[in-house]
Amino acid sequence: MSSEGPAVYVGPERDYFGAEHAGAFLQAVERGGGRVVESPEEAEAIVWLGSDGSRLRELLHPGIRWVQLPSAGVETWVEQGLLDRERVFTSAAGAYSDTVAEHALALMLAGARRLHECARATEWRAGWGRTLAGSTVVVLGAGGIGRALIRMLKPLGPRVFAVTRSGREVPDADESRAADEMDRLWPEGDFFVIAAPATAATRHMIGAGELAAMKESAWVVNVARGSLIDTEALVEALAAGSIGGAALDVTDPEPLPDGHPLWREPRALITPHAANPPEALARNLGRRIEENVSRFRRGEDLIAPVDMEAGY
Amino acid sequence: MSSEGPAVYVGPERDYFGAEHAGAFLQAVERGGGRVVESPEEAEAIVWLGSDGSRLRELLHPGIRWVQLPSAGVETWVEQGLLDRERVFTSAAGAYSDTVAEHALALMLAGARRLHECARATEWRAGWGRTLAGSTVVVLGAGGIGRALIRMLKPLGPRVFAVTRSGREVPDADESRAADEMDRLWPEGDFFVIAAPATAATRHMIGAGELAAMKESAWVVNVARGSLIDTEALVEALAAGSIGGAALDVTDPEPLPDGHPLWREPRALITPHAANPPEALARNLGRRIEENVSRFRRGEDLIAPVDMEAGY
Repeated sequence: MSSEGPAVYVGPERDYFGAEHAGAFLQAVERGGGRVVESPEEAEAIVWLGSDGSRLRELLHPGIRWVQLPSAGVETWVEQGLLDRERVFTSAAGAYSDTVAEHALALMLAGARRLHECARATEWRAGWGRTLAGSTVVVLGAGGIGRALIRMLKPLGPRVFAVTRSGREVPDADESRAADEMDRLWPEGDFFVIAAPATAATRHMIGAGELAAMKESAWVVNVARGSLIDTEALVEALAAGSIGGAALDVTDPEPLPDGHPLWREPRALITPHAANPPEALARNLGRRIEENVSRFRRGEDLIAPVDMEAGY
Repeated sequence: MSSEGPAVYVGPERDYFGAEHAGAFLQAVERGGGRVVESPEEAEAIVWLGSDGSRLRELLHPGIRWVQLPSAGVETWVEQGLLDRERVFTSAAGAYSDTVAEHALALMLAGARRLHECARATEWRAGWGRTLAGSTVVVLGAGGIGRALIRMLKPLGPRVFAVTRSGREVPDADESRAADEMDRLWPEGDFFVIAAPATAATRHMIGAGELAAMKESAWVVNVARGSLIDTEALVEALAAGSIGGAALDVTDPEPLPDGHPLWREPRALITPHAANPPEALARNLGRRIEENVSRFRRGEDLIAPVDMEAGY
């Protein structure tokens, strides 16, 4: 470690999240006590910003001891074998939790207040939504996003169930349940919010059977990954009116192709994987870079090291 | 006062808010210690439920000492001379605050996350909204709705200005300002939420000058009364792109007529005076009836007596 602080390469596309945010990441390195270097050869650490992750391998050399990735979910990096055990890779897990939870809240409220229908209306037609107050919300996954959402729901007054693999007690939730108790919850919930990581175990966690068990008024909100819902089963449930609606920031396939039935489904609201806008991303990634550079400089544990076994 | 509790007439249209809720109001009277009577002649108090307010006068007689009205805003009752000083009239002011604040939050988040655009999209187009986190929210009016909204905004992390006539300190707001300081706030706010009563003083509180002073990205949200915004000026500002958008649960004129330019305005989101859905209304009006019947029975001050001078 140099007396001037660790040498950090930021790139190769510093303006990947917009030219207006490029400077913020360099400043974050400096605020954390690091030194920005122009070439990866001189660097001990890399803050990866770029469109083509496969190029990361070209930048790595034995002197690189840490790589900060900019995304919260890193399953594609792991699957494509772009990471290794020679150094620490950190994701941005947790950095965007509040931002994504805010989007989930927006989607829930839009469903409750039927804003998707109102946005499409071209005349005044009396019609009522309902309130989150007094409703039953089931949050599937209590990582950063789930916990942030539960905190945001508190002053609105729904009854909140937090569901995790283990059923461990989740702060601020009214009830904490294990995933294997979901059979009892599918018929109970007014809103199901998916905020779980995409793994083999969570693939299609909402399929035909789960949808059939839900109330006719139930809404499904997904801000995690498209693969957690069986899209075909969802399309059928929406068309049949067997659930109230779906608000999806992530889809499977993604992007949702032109002409897909969800584009014309009156009970659906799709946002184009937009839960984490660049402005908020830059602000929060900058904070994470600063904190991790500071920890790296002091030889402390970094935030959100990638667990190569778990795949996130 | 009878030993059986005060005689309360509920009507004349008990199913005015839906047949499924009619029973709830009778039960509320009984839970409050009152006695439901079938004829207004036998009654000491009236819980008014009906479409034609002018018929209230027919039911009044000197023995009626209290009338509970079902709406929070009673300016039309006052203007039409339907109330008098012979007895106490109570509005439902405050009873629906949380419900309406929840709708305001839904509209703000829809504007921030551009859900109105997404709802209308029929193909995947990358596009970003922004967060309430880090934004500046100006809440105009800090009655029940404004205070409830400020409480709900707290965990989302915007900077909140609460504006009242006097500038008195409002709990949970980051800054409390007087209405005559608004000149400094119009250029500051990212979101302006109107939650003020409709009076002569608040008519067109947002007009051409105020709109011109706002940021190009600013959103205006109205859950109060349509007359608080100069609709023509708003239509022009939206068409010119001089503000970011408007989300309106109330309009002027209301209902917004077919073919009105706001129906085709891409920056606008209109909900049909739907902030207080019947289910929530019945639940909350029931609670208010119960509480006021209980107070009436005990001879205590009632909640939300109409101030005939102020007009609300």
